[in-house]
Amino acid sequence: MENALKQFIEQNIPQIEATMYELVEKIQAPAHLKESMLYSLKAGGKRIRPLFVAAVCEMYNQSLEASYTVGSAVEMIHTYSLIHDDLPCMDDDELRRGKPTNHVVYGEALATLAGDALNTIAFGVIARLNNIPAEKRIELINLLSVAAGAEGMVGGQILDMDGEKRLLNLQELETVHVNKTGALLRFSIESGAVLAGASESDRQALVEYAHHIGLAFQIQDDILDIEGTSEQLGKTAGKDIVSEKSTYPALLTLEGAKSKLNEHYELAIEALRKIDIDTSLLQQFAQYIVRRNN
Amino acid sequence: MENALKQFIEQNIPQIEATMYELVEKIQAPAHLKESMLYSLKAGGKRIRPLFVAAVCEMYNQSLEASYTVGSAVEMIHTYSLIHDDLPCMDDDELRRGKPTNHVVYGEALATLAGDALNTIAFGVIARLNNIPAEKRIELINLLSVAAGAEGMVGGQILDMDGEKRLLNLQELETVHVNKTGALLRFSIESGAVLAGASESDRQALVEYAHHIGLAFQIQDDILDIEGTSEQLGKTAGKDIVSEKSTYPALLTLEGAKSKLNEHYELAIEALRKIDIDTSLLQQFAQYIVRRNN
Repeated sequence: MENALKQFIEQNIPQIEATMYELVEKIQAPAHLKESMLYSLKAGGKRIRPLFVAAVCEMYNQSLEASYTVGSAVEMIHTYSLIHDDLPCMDDDELRRGKPTNHVVYGEALATLAGDALNTIAFGVIARLNNIPAEKRIELINLLSVAAGAEGMVGGQILDMDGEKRLLNLQELETVHVNKTGALLRFSIESGAVLAGASESDRQALVEYAHHIGLAFQIQDDILDIEGTSEQLGKTAGKDIVSEKSTYPALLTLEGAKSKLNEHYELAIEALRKIDIDTSLLQQFAQYIVRRNN
Repeated sequence: MENALKQFIEQNIPQIEATMYELVEKIQAPAHLKESMLYSLKAGGKRIRPLFVAAVCEMYNQSLEASYTVGSAVEMIHTYSLIHDDLPCMDDDELRRGKPTNHVVYGEALATLAGDALNTIAFGVIARLNNIPAEKRIELINLLSVAAGAEGMVGGQILDMDGEKRLLNLQELETVHVNKTGALLRFSIESGAVLAGASESDRQALVEYAHHIGLAFQIQDDILDIEGTSEQLGKTAGKDIVSEKSTYPALLTLEGAKSKLNEHYELAIEALRKIDIDTSLLQQFAQYIVRRNN
């Protein structure tokens, strides 16, 4: 990883996590519900979404304060989706990031409700960002609702489930991922642009970057399922092959998937060239996404 | 039911429902996801929450247009909570409002995701209320997030689950219901006050009314579980007794519960006396809540 990005991540993850945990710790709610919510929030992860919100604000020399809260909101949505995704009635996973999944520890009922509560609170924490003009908060809430809901992440999960029953073609697979993982990544980057007050043309270029980064992220995920170890991944490797799931390597071969990954990486970098300020942080982020091994 | 209230309900339910269905029908999402969301939204119900939003606006002579959207949002939250509540890992109910529950028709995975999508879209539909000032929309979203989440409805569901394991005392039972059903009813009435621009003192009186109406609503629910038939209720009657659940009749006897119901009804009416405009619609609503047989 490039030094500047490494430093950025090391500096900001502690503040993102402190913000996120405090937002949950301070609410008045039954202790075991909060414990279950915090268990999954604290289970680690790369914090890519909140880091993207912060990175865009940093690129425009804006204060990162509000980005930590918006980043927390999107990480809460991401986390609730993992809790529900791991439930026995969905993917039935017992291991996530190397730790027992939420329902294994707290039971299915509490896990379902902890996910629901994380989904709900995400919108509240943005609404309570009192230093940001109400119009911007409304724009962020609208973007997050679309990105996280039936038109975005949840819709993508539905398409993904359908894709477990039959082999999708490349276009269908892309639609799955543009929604399932892409929508929240796009929100992360676009919300940074909203907070930073980026121009409309910069915002479009950032959305284009986000589109390709989202696909690159997913292709690398598929590749890691084949090439990574369970230890590296913190989840069972090789699961896609066992479940005969539609993936990029399954459709394109492993080599083809790697070449597709590189294609999206190049297009992401090209999108950044349309922006007139120093975009090296996001360039490095793109490299990190395609080279990561977990 | 008093004629004025009857007319109000008959006039407004079709518009509330049309608004709510259109908000879901117009989104771009997988067909079976939308179908599952609409199945539960269309399964009926008394629409008490959206009717309360509209009734408060009506009382202040405001246009009801925005109230239909805010009412749809709270009904979506209420509906998602029923879908998740009925899941096998929660209450495991196969019948709701006389129809098979969502997971019986669509499977558990889709039911879980349809619930998630309804939760998420509720915040978006308020955010997109372009004729309402952004500050008011933010206030509504903040209130809804608190009412629906760990500090409100979801927190109440957790306490309710705990109450299935041991007999609660009266204060604990009240805390369950103030959160589980009370928080969304309070939101419905308070959001009407926000939309109508009610004075701070009127708003406080309405919140007090909402508090007692919420408890009265729940006590009547407990009474109906004993005195009602499954046919009237559209769900299995007598379930509380079989499951040895903490209820008002279990703690206070049936007579004691009825007297408690009347106490909260009187306090709700008393709260309305603090308001200087004609509150007969909400008075009639209170009667309807305590006299309903389903």
